[in-house]
Amino acid sequence: MKLTTAGESHGKTLVGIIEGLPSNLPIDFDLINSRLALRQSGYGRGGRQKIESDKIEILSGVRNRLTLGSPLAFQIVNRDYQNWQPYMDPEGADVSMRRLTRVRPGHADLTGLLKYDQTDARNILERASARETAVRVAAGSIAMCYLKELGVYVSGYVRCVCGIVDNNQYSFEGLAEAKNNPLFMLDSLLERQAMDLIDSLKASGDTAGGVVEIRVKGLKAGFGSCMQYSTKLDALLCGAVMSVQAIKGVEIGMGFEVSKLPGSRVHDEIFLENGKYVRGSNNAGGIEGGMSNGEEIVLRAAMKPIPTLMKGLKTVDYATGQPATAAGERSDVAAICACEIIVESVVAMTLAEVISSRLGGDNLKEVKERYSRLP
Amino acid sequence: MKLTTAGESHGKTLVGIIEGLPSNLPIDFDLINSRLALRQSGYGRGGRQKIESDKIEILSGVRNRLTLGSPLAFQIVNRDYQNWQPYMDPEGADVSMRRLTRVRPGHADLTGLLKYDQTDARNILERASARETAVRVAAGSIAMCYLKELGVYVSGYVRCVCGIVDNNQYSFEGLAEAKNNPLFMLDSLLERQAMDLIDSLKASGDTAGGVVEIRVKGLKAGFGSCMQYSTKLDALLCGAVMSVQAIKGVEIGMGFEVSKLPGSRVHDEIFLENGKYVRGSNNAGGIEGGMSNGEEIVLRAAMKPIPTLMKGLKTVDYATGQPATAAGERSDVAAICACEIIVESVVAMTLAEVISSRLGGDNLKEVKERYSRLP
Amino acid sequence: MKLTTAGESHGKTLVGIIEGLPSNLPIDFDLINSRLALRQSGYGRGGRQKIESDKIEILSGVRNRLTLGSPLAFQIVNRDYQNWQPYMDPEGADVSMRRLTRVRPGHADLTGLLKYDQTDARNILERASARETAVRVAAGSIAMCYLKELGVYVSGYVRCVCGIVDNNQYSFEGLAEAKNNPLFMLDSLLERQAMDLIDSLKASGDTAGGVVEIRVKGLKAGFGSCMQYSTKLDALLCGAVMSVQAIKGVEIGMGFEVSKLPGSRVHDEIFLENGKYVRGSNNAGGIEGGMSNGEEIVLRAAMKPIPTLMKGLKTVDYATGQPATAAGERSDVAAICACEIIVESVVAMTLAEVISSRLGGDNLKEVKERYSRLP
Amino acid sequence: MKLTTAGESHGKTLVGIIEGLPSNLPIDFDLINSRLALRQSGYGRGGRQKIESDKIEILSGVRNRLTLGSPLAFQIVNRDYQNWQPYMDPEGADVSMRRLTRVRPGHADLTGLLKYDQTDARNILERASARETAVRVAAGSIAMCYLKELGVYVSGYVRCVCGIVDNNQYSFEGLAEAKNNPLFMLDSLLERQAMDLIDSLKASGDTAGGVVEIRVKGLKAGFGSCMQYSTKLDALLCGAVMSVQAIKGVEIGMGFEVSKLPGSRVHDEIFLENGKYVRGSNNAGGIEGGMSNGEEIVLRAAMKPIPTLMKGLKTVDYATGQPATAAGERSDVAAICACEIIVESVVAMTLAEVISSRLGGDNLKEVKERYSRLP
Repeated sequence: MKLTTAGESHGKTLVGIIEGLPSNLPIDFDLINSRLALRQSGYGRGGRQKIESDKIEILSGVRNRLTLGSPLAFQIVNRDYQNWQPYMDPEGADVSMRRLTRVRPGHADLTGLLKYDQTDARNILERASARETAVRVAAGSIAMCYLKELGVYVSGYVRCVCGIVDNNQYSFEGLAEAKNNPLFMLDSLLERQAMDLIDSLKASGDTAGGVVEIRVKGLKAGFGSCMQYSTKLDALLCGAVMSVQAIKGVEIGMGFEVSKLPGSRVHDEIFLENGKYVRGSNNAGGIEGGMSNGEEIVLRAAMKPIPTLMKGLKTVDYATGQPATAAGERSDVAAICACEIIVESVVAMTLAEVISSRLGGDNLKEVKERYSRLP
Repeated sequence: MKLTTAGESHGKTLVGIIEGLPSNLPIDFDLINSRLALRQSGYGRGGRQKIESDKIEILSGVRNRLTLGSPLAFQIVNRDYQNWQPYMDPEGADVSMRRLTRVRPGHADLTGLLKYDQTDARNILERASARETAVRVAAGSIAMCYLKELGVYVSGYVRCVCGIVDNNQYSFEGLAEAKNNPLFMLDSLLERQAMDLIDSLKASGDTAGGVVEIRVKGLKAGFGSCMQYSTKLDALLCGAVMSVQAIKGVEIGMGFEVSKLPGSRVHDEIFLENGKYVRGSNNAGGIEGGMSNGEEIVLRAAMKPIPTLMKGLKTVDYATGQPATAAGERSDVAAICACEIIVESVVAMTLAEVISSRLGGDNLKEVKERYSRLP
Repeated sequence: MKLTTAGESHGKTLVGIIEGLPSNLPIDFDLINSRLALRQSGYGRGGRQKIESDKIEILSGVRNRLTLGSPLAFQIVNRDYQNWQPYMDPEGADVSMRRLTRVRPGHADLTGLLKYDQTDARNILERASARETAVRVAAGSIAMCYLKELGVYVSGYVRCVCGIVDNNQYSFEGLAEAKNNPLFMLDSLLERQAMDLIDSLKASGDTAGGVVEIRVKGLKAGFGSCMQYSTKLDALLCGAVMSVQAIKGVEIGMGFEVSKLPGSRVHDEIFLENGKYVRGSNNAGGIEGGMSNGEEIVLRAAMKPIPTLMKGLKTVDYATGQPATAAGERSDVAAICACEIIVESVVAMTLAEVISSRLGGDNLKEVKERYSRLP
Repeated sequence: MKLTTAGESHGKTLVGIIEGLPSNLPIDFDLINSRLALRQSGYGRGGRQKIESDKIEILSGVRNRLTLGSPLAFQIVNRDYQNWQPYMDPEGADVSMRRLTRVRPGHADLTGLLKYDQTDARNILERASARETAVRVAAGSIAMCYLKELGVYVSGYVRCVCGIVDNNQYSFEGLAEAKNNPLFMLDSLLERQAMDLIDSLKASGDTAGGVVEIRVKGLKAGFGSCMQYSTKLDALLCGAVMSVQAIKGVEIGMGFEVSKLPGSRVHDEIFLENGKYVRGSNNAGGIEGGMSNGEEIVLRAAMKPIPTLMKGLKTVDYATGQPATAAGERSDVAAICACEIIVESVVAMTLAEVISSRLGGDNLKEVKERYSRLP
């Protein structure tokens, strides 16, 4: 399974193509659209998210809600495009307008101008923008339709907002609650504090980042591989998660804490209970030797604060070479809920890729049968 | 550029093939062999590293110390193979010996047995073992020969050993000193403490992990891409680093700390000095929008403690289903210096891949000219 | 550069995404649309081609007729979709209609039913159909925009229709004329014979295939590689051409004739004229050692007759197991002109891929400069 | 499954790494070595093949004749290396010797010099040489070990030598006989003529090419895909076969003949016999819609005459720019038997890749079970 994406932030549409889905897989449009809505939600978002109300439109690969085994193409139409068409149209546009030359720290703007031989950072940010992640959420949600058929589930929550950290332990089942809450946090007291902090950051024109934790339940042992470095499950997951805009750190299981403890307090001892191998702990986060070990997969990612600050950051105007204040293209204070949905989605997509390369199979019946026969 | 690897830990040899090197690149055999030696060094290593004294033998792709543009194959012969041949020979071996069934927590053993339909974890660990990383060090050192021609350098040091953390800031030039020290640390007081801790862990049959920091100097802006998620430099680096045995966390620049601070204290403001864009800080660790931004790249990785403890961990004997104590295949207490060399090497290899895909080019002259013309 | 495609024959739309185009490449919409029209033209086509009048709609990656360096997504809307939506809609369709169970020899029908666990070959043919090639023509035409910037041109003509063979030699410049002719042939007498033959085949409910010859002018030496089998230019071209529906043979230069002549009559001797290496002949068809050698590339492909015959072929009804006559989904007698355009297009796309992997480069200026500096 | 190769013609050794083999696959060393010997055999070969007597040495991935599921590395040592080491050693060699500057028509020499910025074509030909195919024969023979477990067999024969064509039809079983004959032909009269022709070509310092036919028996329907052009079985097979040195044409089934006949005489009608779908003919050569259809796969490839002629071809001395006669690096008159073995081998390797991507699976038991369950 493989996802290819395209689309500018203010272009006509975002497009994705998923190759390698088996035939006869039921596609849950409500699941996809509800997750697209969740990506746009969360306390601390600015105005733009209200304009858009993302919906998936499947263009190919599905007939009567079942996949055909052919490439599944979909789009998420930009509902604001009519306002942008004069400046963005592929066949003819006024590119002297909507220029951005006060290149924004923390963005692709400056480097992109150099690399792509441009003078208007509009031509960079349109693709570098996090709006691209809507496609990955849609694709990840389609991947969840696949995973569900195998009894594999991905969930998560927000664990930290700008330094307000939730160190509680939660059961997988308890995580579902998070998406009902304004910041996808599970401790209401900490969430209230985080909301207050966001309010005060907003007042001062500043922004917040955070940490999300993603968990996977139901995955059998042996996905990924210990035999070639490029096929290790943790490597694939971390590469995918780090590809999400604004992520600056990824860890599995106990993560960076492993560097502080002796081996006897880190490794998960093995027991046989009722004919099944179990662990006394899950510090490995469900991955040993580059493979799922049958325990829950636990992954955390750190998101940097939104790099567009209303109070502005010092920069240079690329057109004049003069000092300037960076322009604000949008006005979110925090987007950690979006981040949670996106990371969850790329984890789902990555798992679907890894699972399908082990199982092979052309149709759902075959895929399910092969999964059920694994030890 | 692409690396393919092979080789069992106690097999005849380890093999690597690097495709995509330009012709006429000088290969520095001393550099490669000295880095292979460094991988085997460091305070806290056990006995096996003394048996081996790894040397690269180039099998193809190089003539008279210059690359030909053809695939560069190399091997690192296992000097202990004569002792293992009776049990490991591809053409006929006594596989009833050297069996391992007391599957070790923290290793691929148990999952590998299930996945590969085996009853002897020898058939798993031989490849899953960290000995495989010798190939990646050799390949990364060859990548360094390529990077050097472009003025790009990779270096690093050990920043934490089992909770003893060095929070000092070091200049890139200062890092070279680390490899003269027993634990590749730069603060001699902290290093002394770490050595004492390793001694006491050894006495109690326990092990240590740590954190390494890798830095890259001299890379121009624009490597990686903001245009497709799968080509982002941070994603590629983190995926590669996470593929190293025992790594459980990776971060870029400020890393997980970004989750705790407001945007105004995270993002690196931009200034124009003498016609060159510079930053007031480097919290981004040299990567914005999935591309190098011309600043130093800063990456940290957390290594878990060695999972084979002399005091043993509880497990199950796969052959009998009875509770058991995990066997020790080796007796390192710490391997953080090896980790530093390995991570440095995979960073170098990944950079060489990313650079060569942007530059293209078939011979060194062409590659250097193209790099020099980049903005 | 890489093309990913999607889309069912009677679905809403066909979609393609091209990754890896440099920025600032001018896109020639007229060229693309005129080539899409040529794909639908040619003597011997049936009714469906008149319904459709394919136009490209670029969805991303282009602004004001210049590429952005981001993935270029495009679609070719199915103008007949409103008639098919009730039976094809992804969100809900009446799949009891438009069923095809009398599986057609020469098509994917029967094997597809088994592989994808289906009972209605509609679910197979919708993707297996040659309508998919419209995307490849559009993409190949975009590739031609890239090639043109480097002075590389692809052209071709029809050399054989159902056994009527044109063995004349034509200059590259003379080939352009072919697309003005009803069967893209260059000898009007032979073309008249071929048209008559098509008329008589139509009368008897039969169909025709043929041979197309594609030529490439202006490509410098050294594209492809002699260093790894998977990167040889002839291998890449032939793989791509054989992936076109109905192609059963591909040859380069003298092709199968090389098997009949001694070496002294096959190999192209080398001379130095005015400081430039030239050949006394071009039997190699511009490729030696897996690389372009600077001469014209010459490639021929054989197309089988349309497998849907009005007079019907014997088959089995998959629903009943009873003998049946294969159903006709369309009524072309010959589609050799379409084939010529399609093969030309996949050759252009393949060349653009090979060229871009050698040149690298992120923007057009860089790409052109690098090409100009090649020997 | 994927093969990566390395090695110079007169270097120390040739190396291959096969990734993706399942565990527990028996490796038949005799099969591999006998096929390596066959590659060196055949009427019309010159002196060098006698020096070498190729043997596979497996370096990793196999223990006691069973695969481990890890990358299988192997080498074929160059038995003549001691004579070449002074001129070829990677660590230091006299490169002023054994220079080749009279660039040979039909080889990579001239283009390679330009591309790789060299002045000695030794640095090109060492890799471009057909000796590289020894690795592909070894790998293909390992692939045959995999195919055999599934009941899939690849065989072939020589169908044409320099215009002497065998147009008989042979059963799959009858093909095995070919390898006992001096030119791998099946009609002894034609073979005698071909041997005489080779003798006369030798006398006049000339060379011969030919055509080989490869057949595959036992492959179930549905390998490859009709859903994405890059995964079509015929495209993959033809790309692989065209990557073999000296191949200039490839065809499937009826091949180029399809261009001469009406559809009613080309397409294979479908019947149901004893609950099994069968065909009245196999003009499609076992592939329809980019997938195996369960019939025998039939593929033919045309090999150009050996491009090194004892009588010499006109060329230019690259060192002086003066007219010259091309040097002979070897003195084969015909190598069509080698070609037959090589093409057979790349077909086997390609099938193993395609099969393993559909079946997935980590161990032989799983792979066989999945294959047996396919319709």
